[in-house]
Amino acid sequence: MSCARAVVLLSGGLDSATCLAIARSRGCECFALSVNYGQRHRAELDAAARIAQVLGAAEHRTMSIDLAGIGGSALTDRSIEVPTAPSQGIPITYVPARNTQLLALALGWAEVLEARHLFVGVNAVDYSGYPDCRPEFIHAFERLANLATKAGVEGRSLAVEAPLLHWSKAAIIRAGLELGVDYSLTVSCYRADERGRACGLCDSCRLRAEGFRSAGVADPTRYAMGADLP
Amino acid sequence: MSCARAVVLLSGGLDSATCLAIARSRGCECFALSVNYGQRHRAELDAAARIAQVLGAAEHRTMSIDLAGIGGSALTDRSIEVPTAPSQGIPITYVPARNTQLLALALGWAEVLEARHLFVGVNAVDYSGYPDCRPEFIHAFERLANLATKAGVEGRSLAVEAPLLHWSKAAIIRAGLELGVDYSLTVSCYRADERGRACGLCDSCRLRAEGFRSAGVADPTRYAMGADLP
Repeated sequence: MSCARAVVLLSGGLDSATCLAIARSRGCECFALSVNYGQRHRAELDAAARIAQVLGAAEHRTMSIDLAGIGGSALTDRSIEVPTAPSQGIPITYVPARNTQLLALALGWAEVLEARHLFVGVNAVDYSGYPDCRPEFIHAFERLANLATKAGVEGRSLAVEAPLLHWSKAAIIRAGLELGVDYSLTVSCYRADERGRACGLCDSCRLRAEGFRSAGVADPTRYAMGADLP
Repeated sequence: MSCARAVVLLSGGLDSATCLAIARSRGCECFALSVNYGQRHRAELDAAARIAQVLGAAEHRTMSIDLAGIGGSALTDRSIEVPTAPSQGIPITYVPARNTQLLALALGWAEVLEARHLFVGVNAVDYSGYPDCRPEFIHAFERLANLATKAGVEGRSLAVEAPLLHWSKAAIIRAGLELGVDYSLTVSCYRADERGRACGLCDSCRLRAEGFRSAGVADPTRYAMGADLP
């Protein structure tokens, strides 16, 4: 894949940091986009800014949308607790239509930048049951993107790249380490404290810890004092 | 079509007001969503609130996203003038990926409300050349919506309704008048002043004025003092 300009969604977590490193390794000029959507864990956004800088993004931008006003998720509605035990079906940490909204914002910026690639670090293997992390969702968004935009109408096609889609968490971590990602900068925990230290109990902490174990590499995650390690 | 709950995108303009009246006439419980995306014309949002109330929306909500930070359109970037003469191709008033973003927000709210219908007042006849007002865009978004959401995964399908899609502006106006829409409440102008009075010169003013002329009904548009009537 040849790549000039790309917009890369960057949450500050492990997956999106790896995704940015992959986009950079393909020679893309990367415009990293973080979105403050009223999530509990602002530490993620601070992490995103550091990661964008260290991994050589051309620009990092944080946009805001008020999903807290909509609620319906443990990540955006403070009256709903983040579960600390595995759940069945679609977890309560699913944020309604979040990836559609994030990709829509990325698409708008890509149109202005004349970027031809959107990178998103979704993963369908360890995907925690979110509907908008599935391959069919990504393909449908790519199709939409080419119908929604001036670029698409004028024949400059847009590609939605989800390089982690079919990888295990361990494979993601190994790929990232080869590309020099410093995972101590990333924050995955749904309940991270203000300094980005993890709880060790939520789904996201569990998936991350299992990933480092399977990859057979040291886990640089910083845990909150007294956290039960996953 | 039987309809229980619906989210209706409501800009405060003529088309979306008519769309809300149609959704209400079909028996929907309507949740009207306006989006403050940094547009020039805040008067539109004030108009939306009045229209939602008059047309009996169950709730009206205004969400914010900062598209002004992205720019690339005369509607969101104050360094770009709104043209007062017709243009070729996709006009500079096109806001990059706007309808994708608006529908994505509506989709999130619909998921929380368990609404099965999204109404949007896009129109492909007098559509001013915007790529995201075409039928193929609407169909692609509906397909995406059903892949993106918990509702879709669990088999409660979501429909994107664009009742004005193939109507002329005159037909929209006639339908709205039959349903009792008070068009003096609506603001269409891209350059409306703070009291919602129209410029008479922009594309949107021209399309609106032609619509009232073709429909053969009086135009209740309020023009700014000294405006050249279209």
